[in-house]
Amino acid sequence: MDITGAILIGSGERTASETFDGVDPATGATLAPPISQAGLDDVAAACTLAEAAFPVFSELALEQRAAFLETIADRIAAIGDDLIVRAMAESGLPRARLEGERGRTIGQLKLFAGVVRQGDWLDVTIDPALPDRAPLPRPDLRRRNVALGPVAVFGASNFPLAFSVAGGDTASALAAGCPVVVKGHPAHPGTGELVARAVREAVTACGLPEGVFSYLPGTSNDLGGALVADPRIKAVGFTGSRGGGLALVRIAAGRDEPIPVYAEMSSINPVVLFPGAAKSRGAALGTAFVQSLTMGAGQFCTNPGLVIAVDGPGLDAFVEAAKAALSTSPAHLMLTPGIHTSFEQGVEALAAHASVETLARGLVGEGVNQAQGAFFSTTAEKFLADKALGHEVFGSSSILIRAKDMAEVAKLVRGLEGQLTATLLFDAEDEAAVAPLVPLLAARAGRILANGWPTGVEVSHAMVHGGPYPATSDSRTTSVGSLAIERFLRPVCYQGLPDALLPDALRSANPWQVARRVDGIVERG
Amino acid sequence: MDITGAILIGSGERTASETFDGVDPATGATLAPPISQAGLDDVAAACTLAEAAFPVFSELALEQRAAFLETIADRIAAIGDDLIVRAMAESGLPRARLEGERGRTIGQLKLFAGVVRQGDWLDVTIDPALPDRAPLPRPDLRRRNVALGPVAVFGASNFPLAFSVAGGDTASALAAGCPVVVKGHPAHPGTGELVARAVREAVTACGLPEGVFSYLPGTSNDLGGALVADPRIKAVGFTGSRGGGLALVRIAAGRDEPIPVYAEMSSINPVVLFPGAAKSRGAALGTAFVQSLTMGAGQFCTNPGLVIAVDGPGLDAFVEAAKAALSTSPAHLMLTPGIHTSFEQGVEALAAHASVETLARGLVGEGVNQAQGAFFSTTAEKFLADKALGHEVFGSSSILIRAKDMAEVAKLVRGLEGQLTATLLFDAEDEAAVAPLVPLLAARAGRILANGWPTGVEVSHAMVHGGPYPATSDSRTTSVGSLAIERFLRPVCYQGLPDALLPDALRSANPWQVARRVDGIVERG
Repeated sequence: MDITGAILIGSGERTASETFDGVDPATGATLAPPISQAGLDDVAAACTLAEAAFPVFSELALEQRAAFLETIADRIAAIGDDLIVRAMAESGLPRARLEGERGRTIGQLKLFAGVVRQGDWLDVTIDPALPDRAPLPRPDLRRRNVALGPVAVFGASNFPLAFSVAGGDTASALAAGCPVVVKGHPAHPGTGELVARAVREAVTACGLPEGVFSYLPGTSNDLGGALVADPRIKAVGFTGSRGGGLALVRIAAGRDEPIPVYAEMSSINPVVLFPGAAKSRGAALGTAFVQSLTMGAGQFCTNPGLVIAVDGPGLDAFVEAAKAALSTSPAHLMLTPGIHTSFEQGVEALAAHASVETLARGLVGEGVNQAQGAFFSTTAEKFLADKALGHEVFGSSSILIRAKDMAEVAKLVRGLEGQLTATLLFDAEDEAAVAPLVPLLAARAGRILANGWPTGVEVSHAMVHGGPYPATSDSRTTSVGSLAIERFLRPVCYQGLPDALLPDALRSANPWQVARRVDGIVERG
Repeated sequence: MDITGAILIGSGERTASETFDGVDPATGATLAPPISQAGLDDVAAACTLAEAAFPVFSELALEQRAAFLETIADRIAAIGDDLIVRAMAESGLPRARLEGERGRTIGQLKLFAGVVRQGDWLDVTIDPALPDRAPLPRPDLRRRNVALGPVAVFGASNFPLAFSVAGGDTASALAAGCPVVVKGHPAHPGTGELVARAVREAVTACGLPEGVFSYLPGTSNDLGGALVADPRIKAVGFTGSRGGGLALVRIAAGRDEPIPVYAEMSSINPVVLFPGAAKSRGAALGTAFVQSLTMGAGQFCTNPGLVIAVDGPGLDAFVEAAKAALSTSPAHLMLTPGIHTSFEQGVEALAAHASVETLARGLVGEGVNQAQGAFFSTTAEKFLADKALGHEVFGSSSILIRAKDMAEVAKLVRGLEGQLTATLLFDAEDEAAVAPLVPLLAARAGRILANGWPTGVEVSHAMVHGGPYPATSDSRTTSVGSLAIERFLRPVCYQGLPDALLPDALRSANPWQVARRVDGIVERG
């Protein structure tokens, strides 16, 4: 499969005179070919096709839509090593990571195929007619979920496969029955095009309307803004910075018709280390912490950017082990020169901050755009006195707060902004101290972990990758796991329709064999 | 129970020097006592208490929260006839209607008590640990829904009981575990206070923190705006005008932390009359249509404000019967002088519109604030040429469009804004013509009715009282029926926590006996 740098609109494509280049962050060199900048006409064309595709695509039989998702997965696998090689060049991420990410991307698509087939997402609910009820009879009422409409998806820089062109947002929107228009991330345009072509092949192979999928590469904020503002777009999926996410939220709220924006934005993912665990295995935890901190140059939404620990004898072992591990930790290439610059600026600001002590730095890298890990410390009072200390530094930077006692830990937790994750490191003897923190953290995070590390997100039914603002713009949902399909659905009730006029999902004979809630009780399909 | 005109904050109350008066719309006379205007300090005090109550209230055992909802229902019933008499005086609605509405209000609270007890709303989902999985083990993952936080509820003018102080929004928010701060509607302050006192009694009787409920009467938009802007408020329920709803949406979007606003705003509830039905029973349908149009002075969100019909022999019978019925239809007292004035203005604008013909008017009322029903007609071309013809006139006003053929009907439907309901009147012979309209309407409305009238909303599991913008500000939900609880919930995942640290809903022994989705399959509790 060739990378041409084209804009892919439905089954058509075009090149533009205005172009930009992919960049190899390891060298700063540009990567051929030049990539066309999509423009406002392309937005309009893609949205026109998406709107036209919506009625057919949203009402596909479950099996057809599931097969489509599986076909996308197969076509992505069929790209072969070209995809990995290009993604390595564009992202600086190592082969093993990208092969794993490809596996996750394919797995996500297959998970949603299974979710679609099973049909629980339809939430079929039937209140049978009660013709003899007094004073008024009850009509036959049947409810199902339907797709919202065309969805705009913004690829993320840090997961060029799993959170990008055919990543979680696209998979869940397609699963719900929503056509997708992707604004490709400019940091990996060749990778994006390869995946976009795979999705297009699947659209054709499955005989679907071409508007089910379009791909708009580009570097300008105006392009993304126009896509969110297009009246045919009915929801937005985004992963990126707080500034970028909030800009999209504002555009969406300013439309004639406001639409939901699912923006996953920023999180420092607090880790709370309890005294018992620090005492019994502080050194081991310190080493493991640095592994989580520096994995993938710290470029995970769930990177542990804050450690809260009660000062005490075990804590020194944790700190010393973390310092030792970080001091010998090699620098990692970052995704883009821009991300590297932001990381450097964030780390420099912390290092220069009067309230902050630098505990350790990682090894200096030999090439450009290498992240030198950083571990800082401060006190609870100082942390609470300056909100800037709680802002995310994207990359392998973390800050330790030595708290005087559990009361101070609770005070720190109460002061936290919304988070994707919160991690508790404790031994059995700590449990009485842990217990009151669990509800405090549940009020502030989408996922609470015990004795693990947040940098690892299972794609499953119970996963929540979300959380209160500013972790996301909408805490009611998740962007990872099967629950993500609900972001793109709305309920419709059918009252008194004859069976022949009902959608298949609601017919009395239950031809799709889905679970149904009848008079409030779920019956298996 | 006495009406004192006080502001009720938690278990405390105060009167303000600034007051306003309830008004009897039948006479324009003011009703004693003067009602205190809540101010910004009251907003802050109520929100402080609500935030303090949240941790306890949101984690109540299911049985406790269900019993609380039932206690509210009992206390409202215990107010007795005072409530009906005061509501009649303040709203101009007749006794039978208000007694029915009280029954619905009590029924809603009891429905949600049942929903809370059953526990499906927790959506408990468990992906058991897979310690031997390669290449990486899967940790134990457990997900449940938790309450969003304190909720602001705005009472509606047109349902002084069922959509007001202890109406659907309050019942569903309390069911979810969210403390509620009500901004009382100034059109029925005495009714509101009586119900608010009943809720407070239930809070005390159930031993709950006082901040679970507060009641802020007032007439100013600033009061409501301050409530929505308060950082402790995490969601908003509103029923009212499009202007009012959008103002709240904008305030919420402009906060540091954006929050969801569930505003139910405006809908003209199209009715499509098919040729077969018009021919076989046009006259009967015309009479029934006027009944639906004029019921309660047309002051329902689901009032049928638009009739689309294919021109033909049966249509005249429908029109003649509707004209005859409306011409002898008595005027009805409207809820407030302001609503009456808006109705008059809307009807006058239509009557004077060059594209509109007046088919019939109802009888002129003898007192003040009486709604004289109105039925207009126009053509498809003219309707499509002026968007103003599709705007809601709140009250018993409707407009008939004579379409040339089914293609023109489809064109009209495609041009519709989002609606709460869409009604299809058809005979068996029409079904082939109806079928393609069903998905078109499902894309534009929250509820599709066959051969019924939209002015009647069952409170049940399958009901959807919602729809695409501008019917509501958030099409993903409903404000009536058990699904409404989902508006006030968000998911939280617990990874690897020992059983003793898990919330009861997620413990392995399933002490609450709730349904659980295990590895993707729901198991009954």
